[in-house]
Amino acid sequence: MDATEQAVKDFRHLQSNLDQFFLIIMGMIVLLMQCGFAFLEAGAVRSKNSTNILIKNLMDQFVAGIAYWLFGFPFAFGNGNEFIGYSFWATYELEETRLALFFFQYVFAATAATIVSGAMAERCEFIAYIVYSILITGFIYPVVTHWVWSDNAWLTAGMDYTFNNETVTIGYKDFAGSGVVHVLGGIAALVGATLLGPRKGRFHKGSKTVVPIRGHSVPLAALGGFILLFGFLAFNGGSQLTISNAGDGEAISLSVVNTIISGSMSALVSLIINRLTGTSKWSLLTTLNGALTGMVAICAGCNVYHPWAACVVGFFAAISYKLINTIVTSLYIDDPLDAVAVHFGGGMWGVIAVAFLHRTDGIVYNWNQASGMALAWQLCGLVTIAVWTAVTSLLMFGILKLTGLLRVAPELEAKGLDIPKHGEPAYPTEAYGHGWEEKLAKILEHVELKDAAKNMSSLGDGFAKAFLGAPVKQTDVGPYENPEVNYMETHSTSNSIDAESGKGNGNVNGTTGVPHVTSIDVKSTKM
Amino acid sequence: MDATEQAVKDFRHLQSNLDQFFLIIMGMIVLLMQCGFAFLEAGAVRSKNSTNILIKNLMDQFVAGIAYWLFGFPFAFGNGNEFIGYSFWATYELEETRLALFFFQYVFAATAATIVSGAMAERCEFIAYIVYSILITGFIYPVVTHWVWSDNAWLTAGMDYTFNNETVTIGYKDFAGSGVVHVLGGIAALVGATLLGPRKGRFHKGSKTVVPIRGHSVPLAALGGFILLFGFLAFNGGSQLTISNAGDGEAISLSVVNTIISGSMSALVSLIINRLTGTSKWSLLTTLNGALTGMVAICAGCNVYHPWAACVVGFFAAISYKLINTIVTSLYIDDPLDAVAVHFGGGMWGVIAVAFLHRTDGIVYNWNQASGMALAWQLCGLVTIAVWTAVTSLLMFGILKLTGLLRVAPELEAKGLDIPKHGEPAYPTEAYGHGWEEKLAKILEHVELKDAAKNMSSLGDGFAKAFLGAPVKQTDVGPYENPEVNYMETHSTSNSIDAESGKGNGNVNGTTGVPHVTSIDVKSTKM
Amino acid sequence: MDATEQAVKDFRHLQSNLDQFFLIIMGMIVLLMQCGFAFLEAGAVRSKNSTNILIKNLMDQFVAGIAYWLFGFPFAFGNGNEFIGYSFWATYELEETRLALFFFQYVFAATAATIVSGAMAERCEFIAYIVYSILITGFIYPVVTHWVWSDNAWLTAGMDYTFNNETVTIGYKDFAGSGVVHVLGGIAALVGATLLGPRKGRFHKGSKTVVPIRGHSVPLAALGGFILLFGFLAFNGGSQLTISNAGDGEAISLSVVNTIISGSMSALVSLIINRLTGTSKWSLLTTLNGALTGMVAICAGCNVYHPWAACVVGFFAAISYKLINTIVTSLYIDDPLDAVAVHFGGGMWGVIAVAFLHRTDGIVYNWNQASGMALAWQLCGLVTIAVWTAVTSLLMFGILKLTGLLRVAPELEAKGLDIPKHGEPAYPTEAYGHGWEEKLAKILEHVELKDAAKNMSSLGDGFAKAFLGAPVKQTDVGPYENPEVNYMETHSTSNSIDAESGKGNGNVNGTTGVPHVTSIDVKSTKM
Repeated sequence: MDATEQAVKDFRHLQSNLDQFFLIIMGMIVLLMQCGFAFLEAGAVRSKNSTNILIKNLMDQFVAGIAYWLFGFPFAFGNGNEFIGYSFWATYELEETRLALFFFQYVFAATAATIVSGAMAERCEFIAYIVYSILITGFIYPVVTHWVWSDNAWLTAGMDYTFNNETVTIGYKDFAGSGVVHVLGGIAALVGATLLGPRKGRFHKGSKTVVPIRGHSVPLAALGGFILLFGFLAFNGGSQLTISNAGDGEAISLSVVNTIISGSMSALVSLIINRLTGTSKWSLLTTLNGALTGMVAICAGCNVYHPWAACVVGFFAAISYKLINTIVTSLYIDDPLDAVAVHFGGGMWGVIAVAFLHRTDGIVYNWNQASGMALAWQLCGLVTIAVWTAVTSLLMFGILKLTGLLRVAPELEAKGLDIPKHGEPAYPTEAYGHGWEEKLAKILEHVELKDAAKNMSSLGDGFAKAFLGAPVKQTDVGPYENPEVNYMETHSTSNSIDAESGKGNGNVNGTTGVPHVTSIDVKSTKM
Repeated sequence: MDATEQAVKDFRHLQSNLDQFFLIIMGMIVLLMQCGFAFLEAGAVRSKNSTNILIKNLMDQFVAGIAYWLFGFPFAFGNGNEFIGYSFWATYELEETRLALFFFQYVFAATAATIVSGAMAERCEFIAYIVYSILITGFIYPVVTHWVWSDNAWLTAGMDYTFNNETVTIGYKDFAGSGVVHVLGGIAALVGATLLGPRKGRFHKGSKTVVPIRGHSVPLAALGGFILLFGFLAFNGGSQLTISNAGDGEAISLSVVNTIISGSMSALVSLIINRLTGTSKWSLLTTLNGALTGMVAICAGCNVYHPWAACVVGFFAAISYKLINTIVTSLYIDDPLDAVAVHFGGGMWGVIAVAFLHRTDGIVYNWNQASGMALAWQLCGLVTIAVWTAVTSLLMFGILKLTGLLRVAPELEAKGLDIPKHGEPAYPTEAYGHGWEEKLAKILEHVELKDAAKNMSSLGDGFAKAFLGAPVKQTDVGPYENPEVNYMETHSTSNSIDAESGKGNGNVNGTTGVPHVTSIDVKSTKM
Repeated sequence: MDATEQAVKDFRHLQSNLDQFFLIIMGMIVLLMQCGFAFLEAGAVRSKNSTNILIKNLMDQFVAGIAYWLFGFPFAFGNGNEFIGYSFWATYELEETRLALFFFQYVFAATAATIVSGAMAERCEFIAYIVYSILITGFIYPVVTHWVWSDNAWLTAGMDYTFNNETVTIGYKDFAGSGVVHVLGGIAALVGATLLGPRKGRFHKGSKTVVPIRGHSVPLAALGGFILLFGFLAFNGGSQLTISNAGDGEAISLSVVNTIISGSMSALVSLIINRLTGTSKWSLLTTLNGALTGMVAICAGCNVYHPWAACVVGFFAAISYKLINTIVTSLYIDDPLDAVAVHFGGGMWGVIAVAFLHRTDGIVYNWNQASGMALAWQLCGLVTIAVWTAVTSLLMFGILKLTGLLRVAPELEAKGLDIPKHGEPAYPTEAYGHGWEEKLAKILEHVELKDAAKNMSSLGDGFAKAFLGAPVKQTDVGPYENPEVNYMETHSTSNSIDAESGKGNGNVNGTTGVPHVTSIDVKSTKM
């Protein structure tokens, strides 16, 4: 008997351990979605802004790592009132058994912020990014999670209704965050992209022409997509939060299976829609976005749908994606990643779908007062989240815009952000030795341009070596590492451009976009 | 006592939960192998077909997500006869506790299909890909899994034999699918590649010359490889299917350790073989394929080998890889990914190896009637799977070929599939701003080609900006986004080429492969 | 009662299974860190050495897979004396329940070796790499793990001290290996990089100039970084080794949370330090290295810190990184990946930090004799590990250097290692069809260079096709696949260069670095 009692005690410990392990492993995989978003976005921007978008996505998890720890989690899951929490600052006095929950919620917060970066790519200031990343992961998002996912806050708790002498409690249902994460992220992205304005050259309003600006690498974008498809299973499955209670395994399995089915359906429908309209092509990026939209849409009820209903959710997710995408573009809002269409489009439909397709209470099964009220609550949640996010985002991005911190100077946008802001071109020419460069050298060699090449000290070491068989003598070693920066600097006085802050009066004529420096300086350090 | 009884009940629930969790998490990692295959293949094709191969691998999981759900799983694990199952259509009436199994089996099905895409890369029609992906994941593969992995189908159940008055039941053993997944995938790949025919320029049969066609990116291929090495551990370890029974942990651990040892051994032997023969180089891609072959070969018995036996399996896997690779090439079959050598070569040896090296019943330990019969059963399983796959694949690919849907038109193959089929070049030139382009601009600037450059409106926005400091005036905004497509269109009437379907009478002279368009059109949308 | 007894028995099995499952899944994710290191390093080298660095990282896990199995694990965890173990050769007689531990320790060993490859990138012989990879994973690292992580070896066991009549046992504390893995890896990297000498052109000692050599791809480096940030959570969390005991879940959760907080803090501080000094840029690579240093530093005590202490650890980790980085550079030691600064810098501080910040015994809480002795033991462990590693590395790299096997010939270094050593350029020019090449063809076409182009048979198939619309006639089909190799070969007699072994007398004048071959040979095989 002693052994049995000990085993029972051990068993309770094991249950607790496993719940924590489950949250940790699922949370880790959700954290990898940061990598997924980073590459989806890096592939979808031009090479000149690749480092910029990568560091932004990288910063998310670090900024959130501090902000969500200090005050985000307390706002969300601290003890407080029905609107906001206020305890556990910096996890102080948080039970150790709840650290795993903290971790899982932290990775969700980072996800919410990272959605926005896509819509604001290629023109947003780095400082603005840090600021709004802090505010989203530390305040805007935590407040909404408090409403929906903490115990007894106003949206979840719902209200009691009496129908036919039965009292039913009806509240907002959002299992894995179609509304909490994706509508929020999508709305913030929409507000951000609108206030930022479109990238240079994206729209010609006069001729009502939309010029596509292609990203620089389909493989990078696809890599990000594959990782997101993987991570989404943990995002939705992990939202069960426990593994030790009866039925947890089934709920997790159902969530994962429904995520696959909805994502697949939405991908296939998006593929076909794209094939039948517009470009008439089998587009990888559209299919991928379609799949993601399907997975966003299924979040809210992936644990309560029959698989066939997941198929329906996926079908309409594809429609919603296409619809929102068309609307956003027709409003001349430039969203390089279609973040609004994917996350708001998918999330909005996802929140509503629960009321219709919930396998016990859905309107398609039971059209009665209770299911009608449930729909009302879903709409209430949707609108509240959207309005809250819109208002707070408007304030946040508005202030950033008024203070001139939101958007980079036009010259920097034209040049790309990687070199002036980060000092790190994504693909530094001089690092390529066996490839384009040498072949190019060979071509020019054959066409008798060799002498001309001798003057090309400005082309950097790699090139010079290729042409001349020797490194360039470094005649001008200065603090600048790139002609663009050099250009910025040499022109900054006369034109009042501050290359670092990216603010300028914009007098620089666009036609001087190519730097006319005659020497490239390899950045060096005197010691 | 009450608490104890409750704990026992809770414990049974926990066991069930954990088994499901185990399948879900292992299945998720196996699903990531789709990403691995995608990048292994993307790196191994030319840049002009990168988007094409990526979308194919992406489609696998979506196509399988619907097809395996609707009818693949029912054929495999539905209640039925010894040949095929027929219940649980669209998971209807499937117990919720078995959804995790459904998910795990689904990811395996997607893997089987994706093996084939490598062998058929760079010349296969997109529609053909969708069709065979449906058939493999929905029928060909499920039937074989029914034989081997469902309860009491003919191959697994085996037969009773009486040796020395002891009755022994002997059946086909294939723990993680050396035969079921890899021989099947490898044979389908072989049939597909054979019917497709080699890529243009791959073989000069007259001079008996084999021209290597290099892939465009070793890093992408290596990325895929690393992900596959990671995923294979879940593939083999996860095949235990449960974690709650006594011995499960040990079986999973042994499987993982043996997978590492066999893969490592095969990698090292492949590295050395390549160093001693042929190119005399330390080849990354050969080493990687060697490792994968070792992991394929160990599948069938990774749970029943001593580690030293795994070492032996890996050693001969490398030999088998080299052998099959040599045979396939000598038959002038073009398999861009060596999929046949890796999967059929490794899988075939893996199925046979079980009979010899099984740690209790293997021939090297006990040479008797029972072990002899076990070998016969392994060969029986191997041959049956190979013949089944060959016949069904032949039918499938044969019909596709006869209807002209299998292979793209020669013009499209020369041009690459990315732009005409998908509208998405993997690396759109205009998206590169800080790199080759600007340096190139600078070279030409220095060699007095500036005026010439002024005429180059055809070079697109990026280039023009680099040369001229201003965007090109868009004089010709049409529906086409690329000179190739433009070319296809303008020539399609006279030469009867249908650029979209890829069918043509092939009259176009190969020497006109470079489009002589004089203007590039940025795809634009009138709104 | 029977059911209860059975359940108790089943429960003990389940505990064992889960501990194994925990080690397997965490170990798998740690193994993925090989992919992380591979891409961090691949992005940080020039394109001409990308295949080389990728295959080295790939080989780690294969070499370790055999070496750690045969003798590494026995040295580390075999029964033996306080210095070294000696049983379980090739896992012989190892209990099956401990195979999961073997796997987990194996992936750690592979990590230790792979740290070194970064510091020695772009100039180290392949053979040297294999040799030191065997020695580190098979001997140097296992011995240290025996001291610290096996039962009752000298460093862990510590000694008994009596303070105020209380006997306290004090030993070296290193939970996840700040010292065991990272100081060891960092010191080996330091010794290796020093003996190898800097890359050509890295330092101009006369003018005391440090010339940065940029890596070829920020996206690849960032990819590696994201994967490492993911893997580090398993590295630190997994070090708990069990999940079934009371408190395991909390320890794992705390470890993961502290890893996030320390990494985030260190990343942010590194970002700011870099912004305020030197280049004044928001550097992605510095931020990433900062994050990794923070995660390295937290290893030793991630299970015993309060989160605020993790924040402190991260803060000083950033300082330590910057400090060691500056020292290493000022000594003209060329460490392309900053491996010494990240791993030694972070690891050293991490080992010391435990003595100060341990939440029950740390000096900041209790300054007494016991905590003073604990600090002494930490320093003792740190110094012992560093000295052991330095001495053994010096012997190992020294012998390799004396035998001429350590560094490639200068000609090979200039050319890059990918083609001569591996036969696999990372980005083979001829594999690019839709991109730079065609645009380039178009430029030259417009500037009337078409005739010149006709002579360019040397430019390979892809180019020729682009220019001439037809493949080059292969007039010279030889065994070499690349002009560099060709060049090496044709010059090898007169200049005594052995292109394969990379050894030569170095007479080749640097100015002939560009091969003047007039024909490129596509490697072909006569059949």
